[in-house]
Amino acid sequence: MNPSPLLAELITVLQFLPGIGPKSAQRIAFHLLEQHRDKARRLADVMRRAADQIGQCASCRTFCETEVCSLCRSESRDASLICVVESPLDVASIEAASDFRGKYFVLLGRLSPIDGVTPDTLGMPLLEQRLAGGEVREMIVATGTTMEGEATAHYLRQLAQRANVRATRIAYGVPVGGDLEFVDGSTLSHALASRRDY
Amino acid sequence: MNPSPLLAELITVLQFLPGIGPKSAQRIAFHLLEQHRDKARRLADVMRRAADQIGQCASCRTFCETEVCSLCRSESRDASLICVVESPLDVASIEAASDFRGKYFVLLGRLSPIDGVTPDTLGMPLLEQRLAGGEVREMIVATGTTMEGEATAHYLRQLAQRANVRATRIAYGVPVGGDLEFVDGSTLSHALASRRDY
Repeated sequence: MNPSPLLAELITVLQFLPGIGPKSAQRIAFHLLEQHRDKARRLADVMRRAADQIGQCASCRTFCETEVCSLCRSESRDASLICVVESPLDVASIEAASDFRGKYFVLLGRLSPIDGVTPDTLGMPLLEQRLAGGEVREMIVATGTTMEGEATAHYLRQLAQRANVRATRIAYGVPVGGDLEFVDGSTLSHALASRRDY
Repeated sequence: MNPSPLLAELITVLQFLPGIGPKSAQRIAFHLLEQHRDKARRLADVMRRAADQIGQCASCRTFCETEVCSLCRSESRDASLICVVESPLDVASIEAASDFRGKYFVLLGRLSPIDGVTPDTLGMPLLEQRLAGGEVREMIVATGTTMEGEATAHYLRQLAQRANVRATRIAYGVPVGGDLEFVDGSTLSHALASRRDY
C-alpha cells in the first residue's frame, strides 16, 4: 500500500534508466525527494530539453544542438580523413585517447537487419554522398568487433571500394568481442596508429 | 571536445543521482537519446511533478500528494498503536513484511545536531501533539541501530514518558549498525512481533 501514486510512478519510470532496478529506483526517488528537490527539478528540465533539442549533425550524424557540429565545422581538422564509428561515445573516446585530427561519421548503431537496423537507418546514403564528394582520401573503419560490428565494417568497405576511397581499419588491439567504448586509451590510440588496409 | 553543450550538461546533472558516476551518466544519456526520447520526456515530466507536488502527510509526515495520506485516513487501522520510523522506505518495508495494522509516524531523518538535524526538523512537536491527544496507547520505536538512530530512539522514549504513553522498541534481530531498509522481511516481521518495553 503506497500512500503516494505519484511516488510509485516516479519509482517506475526511474527504471527506464539502464542499470536501475526497483530497489535502486526507490532509493533514488527518496534521495531526490528528501533533500534534493532542486536537483530533481534541474535534472528534469535538462532531460526534457535534451530530449527535445538535441538533434543530429547534418554532416556526421553525431548528437548536437546545431545544424552542423563543432567538429565538422572545425577548419583545423583534416577533412580528407574520416573515421566511422558506431556511437558518439566512440567519438568522445577517440578524442580523449588519441591525436586523431580527421573528421568523423557516426552510425548511431550497427547493421542488424533482424532488429530492423538497415544501412538507411545508419545514414549510409549520407556517408556515400560524402565519399562521392571527392574530398575524402581515406576512411577509417572503427566499428566494434562484435558480429554486427563486423558486418557493418564489411558493408563500409564495399561503400569505400565503390567510391574509390582507401578504406583502413583500426588495428587489432581492441579486445575481440567487445564494444569500443570500454577500451582503455592507450590501446585505442595504438589501434588507431597501426591501422591497416581493409 | 564535446560537440553538444546540452549533452555535456545532461551527463553532469545525471550524476546528481546517487550511485551514478561519470561513466554511467554518459551511458544513460546516450541510451536515452539514441532510442528512448519518449521515455526521457516521461521521466522528466514525472520527476518534475514529483518534486513539485509530493508533499508530506499532515498527520504522519510520509510522502504523499494529499493533505493526509491514505494510511492515516484508513479507518481499519489501529490508531492507538503508532510506529515511528526514519523514512517512508521503512513504512513500505514494514507494510510488505509484517501484519502491522497500526499507524505510522515518519521522521524523515534521525537526530544529528552536528548536521543541523534537530527534533524540530524531524517533526517531534507534531508527534508530541499526537501523543498528547490521548488516543495513542503504545508507541513502537523502529529507528535504525546506527548511533543517530539510537540517539533518536532515546529522545523518543523521553517523549513517550512525558506523555505517559507506553514506549516499545522493535526487537534486536535487526542487524546492529545497519539501516532498516536493508533488513529482509522475516527478520523485520520477527523484530516487530518480539518488541520489548523501552
